[in-house]
Amino acid sequence: MDFTALEIAKKLNGSLVGNSDLLIDSLSKIEDAQEGSLSFLAHSKYFKYLDKTKASVVLVSKSLEVPQNITTTLIKVDDAYSAFTQLMIEWSKSIALKEKGIHQTAVVASSAQLADDVFLGPHVCVGSNTVIEAGVQIHAHSIIGSNVRIQKNSLLHPRVTLLDQTEIGGHCILHSGVVIGSDGFGFAPQGKDGYLKIPQLGKVIVQDHVEIGANTTIDRATLGATLIKKGVKLDNLVQIAHNVEIGEHTVIAAQTGIAGSAKVGSHCVIGGQVGIAGHITLGDRVQIQGQTGVIKDIPDGAVIQGTPAIDYKSYYKSYSIFKQLPSVESRLSRLEKNK
Amino acid sequence: MDFTALEIAKKLNGSLVGNSDLLIDSLSKIEDAQEGSLSFLAHSKYFKYLDKTKASVVLVSKSLEVPQNITTTLIKVDDAYSAFTQLMIEWSKSIALKEKGIHQTAVVASSAQLADDVFLGPHVCVGSNTVIEAGVQIHAHSIIGSNVRIQKNSLLHPRVTLLDQTEIGGHCILHSGVVIGSDGFGFAPQGKDGYLKIPQLGKVIVQDHVEIGANTTIDRATLGATLIKKGVKLDNLVQIAHNVEIGEHTVIAAQTGIAGSAKVGSHCVIGGQVGIAGHITLGDRVQIQGQTGVIKDIPDGAVIQGTPAIDYKSYYKSYSIFKQLPSVESRLSRLEKNK
Amino acid sequence: MDFTALEIAKKLNGSLVGNSDLLIDSLSKIEDAQEGSLSFLAHSKYFKYLDKTKASVVLVSKSLEVPQNITTTLIKVDDAYSAFTQLMIEWSKSIALKEKGIHQTAVVASSAQLADDVFLGPHVCVGSNTVIEAGVQIHAHSIIGSNVRIQKNSLLHPRVTLLDQTEIGGHCILHSGVVIGSDGFGFAPQGKDGYLKIPQLGKVIVQDHVEIGANTTIDRATLGATLIKKGVKLDNLVQIAHNVEIGEHTVIAAQTGIAGSAKVGSHCVIGGQVGIAGHITLGDRVQIQGQTGVIKDIPDGAVIQGTPAIDYKSYYKSYSIFKQLPSVESRLSRLEKNK
Repeated sequence: MDFTALEIAKKLNGSLVGNSDLLIDSLSKIEDAQEGSLSFLAHSKYFKYLDKTKASVVLVSKSLEVPQNITTTLIKVDDAYSAFTQLMIEWSKSIALKEKGIHQTAVVASSAQLADDVFLGPHVCVGSNTVIEAGVQIHAHSIIGSNVRIQKNSLLHPRVTLLDQTEIGGHCILHSGVVIGSDGFGFAPQGKDGYLKIPQLGKVIVQDHVEIGANTTIDRATLGATLIKKGVKLDNLVQIAHNVEIGEHTVIAAQTGIAGSAKVGSHCVIGGQVGIAGHITLGDRVQIQGQTGVIKDIPDGAVIQGTPAIDYKSYYKSYSIFKQLPSVESRLSRLEKNK
Repeated sequence: MDFTALEIAKKLNGSLVGNSDLLIDSLSKIEDAQEGSLSFLAHSKYFKYLDKTKASVVLVSKSLEVPQNITTTLIKVDDAYSAFTQLMIEWSKSIALKEKGIHQTAVVASSAQLADDVFLGPHVCVGSNTVIEAGVQIHAHSIIGSNVRIQKNSLLHPRVTLLDQTEIGGHCILHSGVVIGSDGFGFAPQGKDGYLKIPQLGKVIVQDHVEIGANTTIDRATLGATLIKKGVKLDNLVQIAHNVEIGEHTVIAAQTGIAGSAKVGSHCVIGGQVGIAGHITLGDRVQIQGQTGVIKDIPDGAVIQGTPAIDYKSYYKSYSIFKQLPSVESRLSRLEKNK
Repeated sequence: MDFTALEIAKKLNGSLVGNSDLLIDSLSKIEDAQEGSLSFLAHSKYFKYLDKTKASVVLVSKSLEVPQNITTTLIKVDDAYSAFTQLMIEWSKSIALKEKGIHQTAVVASSAQLADDVFLGPHVCVGSNTVIEAGVQIHAHSIIGSNVRIQKNSLLHPRVTLLDQTEIGGHCILHSGVVIGSDGFGFAPQGKDGYLKIPQLGKVIVQDHVEIGANTTIDRATLGATLIKKGVKLDNLVQIAHNVEIGEHTVIAAQTGIAGSAKVGSHCVIGGQVGIAGHITLGDRVQIQGQTGVIKDIPDGAVIQGTPAIDYKSYYKSYSIFKQLPSVESRLSRLEKNK
């Protein structure tokens, strides 16, 4: 980056208090900032760091009454956190290295169609009839099957697997170790002879602006498509089974698993290590606490916890009595004796 | 595929009602079928789709009384679901591309023994003294260590790791990201100095007809072998620790973890996100609900839930009272006051 | 190995009873030992295997009174388990193949600095300005980003991803499928438009003697560093979110997830499938039972269970009443009727 304090103040429509010439070369948290870095302070509980910080400049929210004796250069803005986020985004764009070209070790089927500025890193494989649109970056060791489509400007980190027929929208980010399009887990019981594999003939469709975390797995549909809609964010080690559908802008934390044919609504917020049973439907804006197990349909806007899941306030009320159960039982015994 | 409706009716011993010349080029679910596709209807609750479906032909179970006014061509069979599954299996065989040859970018140790028709995809590595039998397909970027054996007709999807000494049976399917033969998690406590690694000198044996889901991990034994018996099916992101033994035809859903030296019987059905403690023994035909935590031996045929696991009906009965605990406690308080 | 029984007895300061010339070529568990192998017996409950075992030599703890009629050659030592572990460590060192050289298919940036005896396996990629110190072994298909540092004698199994800026200490072991340095899961809500990605500009620091299990993921910090301190052991499929800090010599079992900015103390023992919420602090020597959900700060030395976590003895007491809840409710009803 390398901006002066004054340039940053102008960019953020902020008012500068202190040395306007200070040069900023990095962004930091206030508690471990080094000289040359810019930090932020959005809550008075962090005031204690203000006089100790080595940050050259600190963004502060106008609403905060900063102690008088502070010598650090400040930029006062409406909302220090938002302003800092804006700087982070600019900063990340300035350092993002948009790579180009097809590495000589990549193995690309002759029938694959690659836009001019696609980047394929070392050892990347691309199968037949696959289409990769402009601006797509595919890093080392990723494997793209046949009849795959990846739309504009999507970013595949190293070591992603997209199996045949997978469709990835534009502006998606897929992290290392992601597997999309593996077979759904479908078997027909054959009594004592075990199970017969049911072929998984469908595919996975991932819409625009989806981000998928490291080592997350999304299975192809038995028939039709497993569908991850626009703006969905999946954390690491998430499992999405065959024929699942996840609504727009739903966010799912790490290690959550969604079983086959479940439908999750839009704008849901799902905690970590949640399990969602197969063939159920969750409404929009549902919030699910971590480790919850959901086994039946959930209406719009519900906030749930527990296995099986119930309203989360009810769960906490019941759990507070659960913790006292030995004493509840003793009280009951006493009453029985005194009866 | 591309069969006529009449050809399919004959193949399934079904009776055709409608246009026998219709050409079928795909299989679909009835609710999102396109022209040219064949679908099925195994339950009357799907009748509502019958007049709206674009499917050219629908398999229906003889036992269902189809409404009179339906114009879609039907094939009546004993069990529409089974017949459809049979078609899916034939269909998947017809499109399965059995690839052959050793890709020029594969790195194969000179002492490895490969049957004539083995397929090794791009960048596959095969270590010394490894034996790969006839019909084995190993897709791009898979890494096979030394002294590994893979028996007939097994299929390794892209990006599988088999570490040294691993033995894979015949007709197995290993999905992308699987790791087999990583070190078991064994450490001897050394007080304040932390832990001493206990070498993991054993291996993993996977018997015939096992399927292992994407990003699932199976650790090698400390001594001896971690053993996955015939016909076992593991879903995605499952963890199998060192020296675990899993009995024949047991099925384990996603994100379940089995700790060291646990023994699981045959024909068990284990839900997702289940945890099984180390050094315990589960009988045959045990069924475990999702998210259950098992910490002691379980007899044959038990159906269990909860952490720690108890009989699942007892769990549900207790949980139904758990949900009323605040009112239970209030009732108790009232009695105490009125005493 | 190939030692005589006598040589091993001397090495362990043990006293030999039986044939001192027996040749030992492997180590085994007593119940499935083969001829030529050495086994151990540290508890009288294994006496039943003593006369049946095919082991050529068995280490026994001096404190055990071995039945008189045993013909197997024995070596009596202070602690058979420790002595056996010592042999396993020597054995594993003797068979560990320290590989050297840069495989011709590796892709190494010209600005990367590699010590002379570094091993890079087939298809390994190393980014620009990365430093790899002496004795480091990086196996096939691992991908090392730019500005990474890997210190002395660390071992990367096949198919590890280290993204840009990651720092790995000395003597670490990273298993196959590990991803370190993927983006933290950080998004700013934008109302109905979903989420804005917050750039993840920090890194991951892993200190010395850390072991990380297969397919485990560790995200980079938003700013600063996600920190895994000296001697930490992580099992398979563990999730460590951005800005987490894990204290020295803490051990974490498989499939546990730790959310953003949580701090875990030193010498903790954390079971499998545990969830730890973001922004909380756990003390030193905390023990957490499997599947526990921790949502608030935990003091030093606590032993906890349940979701939300409470003292584990309290949890078990409450759970034992939970199992009787239907009868507790019936007793209460009876009292109400008789009132």
